[in-house]
Amino acid sequence: MEHLEYTIEERENELEERQKRIFELLEDKKYFQCRDELLSCNEVDIAEILQEVGDEYGTQKAIMLFRILPKDTSVEVFANLDVDEQVEVINLITDPEIQYIMDELDFDDMIDVLEELPANLVDKILEKTPKAERRRINTFLKYKEYSAGSLMTPDYINLRKEWTVRQALDHIKEVGMDSETIYTCYVLDVGRKLIGIMSLRALVIQDDDLIIGDIMRSDYIYVHVDDDQEELSELFKKYGYLAIPVVDSEGRLVGIVTFDDILDVIEEETTEDMERMGGVIDSEDKDYLDLSVMGHVKARLPWLMLLMFSYFITGGIIQSFENALSSVICLVTYMPMLMGTGGNSGTQASTLIIRGMATGDVEPSDAILVVWKELRISIIVGVCLSLINYLRIVFMDGQPPMVATVVCLSMILIVVVAKIIGALLPMGAKLIKLDPALMSGPMMASITDMISLMTYFTIAKTLLNI
Amino acid sequence: MEHLEYTIEERENELEERQKRIFELLEDKKYFQCRDELLSCNEVDIAEILQEVGDEYGTQKAIMLFRILPKDTSVEVFANLDVDEQVEVINLITDPEIQYIMDELDFDDMIDVLEELPANLVDKILEKTPKAERRRINTFLKYKEYSAGSLMTPDYINLRKEWTVRQALDHIKEVGMDSETIYTCYVLDVGRKLIGIMSLRALVIQDDDLIIGDIMRSDYIYVHVDDDQEELSELFKKYGYLAIPVVDSEGRLVGIVTFDDILDVIEEETTEDMERMGGVIDSEDKDYLDLSVMGHVKARLPWLMLLMFSYFITGGIIQSFENALSSVICLVTYMPMLMGTGGNSGTQASTLIIRGMATGDVEPSDAILVVWKELRISIIVGVCLSLINYLRIVFMDGQPPMVATVVCLSMILIVVVAKIIGALLPMGAKLIKLDPALMSGPMMASITDMISLMTYFTIAKTLLNI
Repeated sequence: MEHLEYTIEERENELEERQKRIFELLEDKKYFQCRDELLSCNEVDIAEILQEVGDEYGTQKAIMLFRILPKDTSVEVFANLDVDEQVEVINLITDPEIQYIMDELDFDDMIDVLEELPANLVDKILEKTPKAERRRINTFLKYKEYSAGSLMTPDYINLRKEWTVRQALDHIKEVGMDSETIYTCYVLDVGRKLIGIMSLRALVIQDDDLIIGDIMRSDYIYVHVDDDQEELSELFKKYGYLAIPVVDSEGRLVGIVTFDDILDVIEEETTEDMERMGGVIDSEDKDYLDLSVMGHVKARLPWLMLLMFSYFITGGIIQSFENALSSVICLVTYMPMLMGTGGNSGTQASTLIIRGMATGDVEPSDAILVVWKELRISIIVGVCLSLINYLRIVFMDGQPPMVATVVCLSMILIVVVAKIIGALLPMGAKLIKLDPALMSGPMMASITDMISLMTYFTIAKTLLNI
Repeated sequence: MEHLEYTIEERENELEERQKRIFELLEDKKYFQCRDELLSCNEVDIAEILQEVGDEYGTQKAIMLFRILPKDTSVEVFANLDVDEQVEVINLITDPEIQYIMDELDFDDMIDVLEELPANLVDKILEKTPKAERRRINTFLKYKEYSAGSLMTPDYINLRKEWTVRQALDHIKEVGMDSETIYTCYVLDVGRKLIGIMSLRALVIQDDDLIIGDIMRSDYIYVHVDDDQEELSELFKKYGYLAIPVVDSEGRLVGIVTFDDILDVIEEETTEDMERMGGVIDSEDKDYLDLSVMGHVKARLPWLMLLMFSYFITGGIIQSFENALSSVICLVTYMPMLMGTGGNSGTQASTLIIRGMATGDVEPSDAILVVWKELRISIIVGVCLSLINYLRIVFMDGQPPMVATVVCLSMILIVVVAKIIGALLPMGAKLIKLDPALMSGPMMASITDMISLMTYFTIAKTLLNI
């Protein structure tokens, strides 16, 4: 079997070998051999290798290699660099080189770069741009972050409904257009209002003399420039389209968002969800290693601080039961277990609900169904855990059966309450338009800690008469 | 601003209205009006509405509506149902209807359905399938779950390298082909070995009399049938392709995987990661509400049980310090805070590292960089938290300064150790080929609880001489 699973691993090994060779050539100052070795790779891989060169030998060396690449390759490579590196490149190359890259980049990639550059550099670049183009760029720079407008490209193919398939194909051949933006064409009326879509597939398959207006699809999905990227990515997932058109408030087509940009959005949104579930506030869309120490502190300290305040309450609960505790000190032994199991039970429920809401399987309106389900689950789980605990406390720890009863009763109650709260809190958050992901992990642990201690101490006081 | 953000919300409202109207018509038994209302929706939406009808009025009603849809719409709708519902439909419709759907479904969708049907039903369907097709289906049914083979479709367009662009376009027009599978064409030699790829875009834009062999791309990315779907989705994210070809061990093209299937894979993999981080083992790819109570118990109890055993150790630690604790009972007050902050700190670090490894920004080889970063972060965070705590313990709780010192010193040490362990454990898991996502949330909390208590009690014993 082993030799069968070769392709992905082999690819990686080959890339690593190549990178090693390039490093060696670089150390021997054989720059043009280096370049030839690079050119045998895919542009995405070249970008990756250049980043490694930068990390290993400094940015200067990486930029030097970048500059001796053939011009069109260099644009492709540039488009595949991380934004930080793009800015570095722009800072270190000559104006004509910058101009060439800006002219050749896909429009949406160019906007992404401009958004990250310091204002004076943007002005310098825009100065040399023709007026009409400059106006277009300025419009795009103004779209809100995380909106459909900020993701779209204005490079789409527009057709007229009175054209024939042949005319449409000739038009496409003439305007050319890059990669993924060509596969869906947009039919506009005279006011640039979107009236239909035509896939390139349909154009290629249909007879040459059919009229576009007769064969176009008019039940297309579209979004508005201000719509949020997360909702946009839901539409892509739901309908499986290659591109979705973006219109302004008058229904005029202003751009399209293509699926490859959505893959990035999905990754960003997943990261945000996971971070929130892990008690991290906002890593500024930066990679772990790129974010500064103070950036990390800013992303983590506020949550820890907030949660610590919640523990002041937990501490207060313990203080008010201090006398009871000191008379039966063995109760302290089981505190971490009860708090921990409560937190874990709540986290399990909240994780499943948060994920269910993210994928659209669970809605806040399902609350009653969810509570009923969690109730049954938690009773079964709670009883199982309690039985084992009872045996352990009585026979291994040698505690009186009454103490074991207190712990086990508390355990069942804690699991039930934690699971129900764990399921309901994210739903409640969604109802009041908060991110449900905030209601998991650390947050859940703090809340269940309080509940667990209250439950435990109350049951202990009652049953043990302390 | 408000009226601007209309499209996505308006769409949803419209769908809901429509669903309500359909429900009303259904209650009035106006089935054919119902059908017309349905037909004004997109197939994806019809599938969704039918599922709602099933939930609300029972499967029988939903199937009845399904059966009065026009035949080609019904196939599209069928393809968009969840697998559970597809099986229900198959069980309730007649053999000719089944045959029609199976004939018209995209090959990969059909395989997905067959995989979920009981064996006797599959046999019944295959009986009526032509022999060659049957053999092809059987081959596909044998690919491992979660492999590239299980995701691919054999419906791709193959070209010959000696053809002209015109011949290629004529060929495409002749074979037709569905949706997304047409946009990349594959050039095969006589032995069906893949030798190059041609995008439909390039075919449409190039001159008619160019030869395919001269203009095809031969530096394409491909995978093997047994390659894992997670690695495959990484390739899609990295290179942004619409489709990736799948070859067998002899390099023969056997199918292609298209980007729309990858969106589902990404969602599955994200769910798996989040569940593992939340202490849930395996929800069998089922939605929260569809998974039975016992299924939920099976997914949650083992983790809770395992973690509970870890609390036996935590309990043991407390027991061995019981005398010290009973002499300074106020130490118990700060236990939950120290354990909680330790757990939260560890979870923050592990979440960031797990996500960083998932997106490829962090590698186990970065361990030293990571530890150095976490060390600086945790000292700053620990000191900030301690300062606030000191003031609170001395001035609000009125405890002796020495107790405050014990708590604060423990706090700093716990945060530092928890953050470093939180960062290193997922990396260690990856090195020994375990899923890093297991090393977060509940798991992290259990480990840091032990560390926190040991640290706290040791410092207390030393400084307070108890």
